[in-house]
Amino acid sequence: MTPTITAFNWVPDFARSYVRDMRARWAFEEIGEDYAVSVIDHATVKGPAHRRVQPFGQVPTYADDEVEIFESGAIALHIARRAPGLLPADRAGQARAEQWVIAALNSVEPMIMQLAMVDIFEADRPWSAARRPQVVEDIRGRLADLSAALGDKDWLDGAFSVGDLTMVSVLRGLHDSGLLAEFPTLAAYVARGEARPAYRRALADHLADFEAEPVPA
Amino acid sequence: MTPTITAFNWVPDFARSYVRDMRARWAFEEIGEDYAVSVIDHATVKGPAHRRVQPFGQVPTYADDEVEIFESGAIALHIARRAPGLLPADRAGQARAEQWVIAALNSVEPMIMQLAMVDIFEADRPWSAARRPQVVEDIRGRLADLSAALGDKDWLDGAFSVGDLTMVSVLRGLHDSGLLAEFPTLAAYVARGEARPAYRRALADHLADFEAEPVPA
Repeated sequence: MTPTITAFNWVPDFARSYVRDMRARWAFEEIGEDYAVSVIDHATVKGPAHRRVQPFGQVPTYADDEVEIFESGAIALHIARRAPGLLPADRAGQARAEQWVIAALNSVEPMIMQLAMVDIFEADRPWSAARRPQVVEDIRGRLADLSAALGDKDWLDGAFSVGDLTMVSVLRGLHDSGLLAEFPTLAAYVARGEARPAYRRALADHLADFEAEPVPA
Repeated sequence: MTPTITAFNWVPDFARSYVRDMRARWAFEEIGEDYAVSVIDHATVKGPAHRRVQPFGQVPTYADDEVEIFESGAIALHIARRAPGLLPADRAGQARAEQWVIAALNSVEPMIMQLAMVDIFEADRPWSAARRPQVVEDIRGRLADLSAALGDKDWLDGAFSVGDLTMVSVLRGLHDSGLLAEFPTLAAYVARGEARPAYRRALADHLADFEAEPVPA
């Protein structure tokens, strides 16, 4: 079978380009492999059949002849192992690429997610306004460290890898915050990622799969 | 060289057994490989030499003849690839084990970390008391899903894997909260992990490496 991922048939405008099927689509485009998309609604994603693969009721999931998995980071790594383009050939380089995948997912994204909590998902809660400055300060500290690690390099470790794909995907979550602009080398890093033809193809396909209006479940 | 990890020479009592060098130690014990520990103080961890490997100024880091990496999840995966014991032999099983590593680090730990924020690191902030019930509710929802995924199995996917090592390490963070007790199958899962001889050896060595009193940097 053609490797197949799941994606939503609709999300609000603010979430478009950020749903995590983007990471799988981008990975496929980087290695130049065809893939199929099963576009599903929110009720299906929360239903028992989907949850047998994705226990938390989210997208994306991934299926090929060999395996069915969830977690966009694990899916991106699995795609990266299918063909050259996202992982170096040597074991040490592969370990460093995995390190950056996990750094993005465990050391950077959780902080950025808290900004989405105070600004979007919990914007109306009484604690969010008071909490926001600390959330921003925590992110600033992490971005300063990451910026120092990137230095004047184009990518985190040699050639573009699944580590960069994941880190750029995570950092993009700061676009509306203005925080990236405080770290010009990181802003340029994200812009380099978003300028890649593979990213642009993935984004176009991601956006094209959404219905304009919410679809009744 | 003997593979070497870094660990702290001292942390407060509440953090003992939870510092992430535990994950690397446990992984080494599971595959039965000797390792060395470079015990360092907090000033060294925040210094420029350590940050060249660990940009965020944390432990653990890992070094062998081939590679130097950070991120406990990436280190555990790297150790798991050195010898049998933590990854199945087939590629599909390996992808599912990686999926659980990343699920633990990206879908479970960030929520549990927020409980540590309100209860410990931001306990004195004006927003923490108001926020706590929502943090707990979010964790409950995630644990319910995870509990359903585990079902009546001993481990998440067949034999004990690096995915279980990471998930148990993450769920342990709830010991003081009482939340695990609300999900008896997850409490039993964590207890099974902590009862493994490899875990117990790792914990004993982790604790033995701490000084009793803070060491001036």
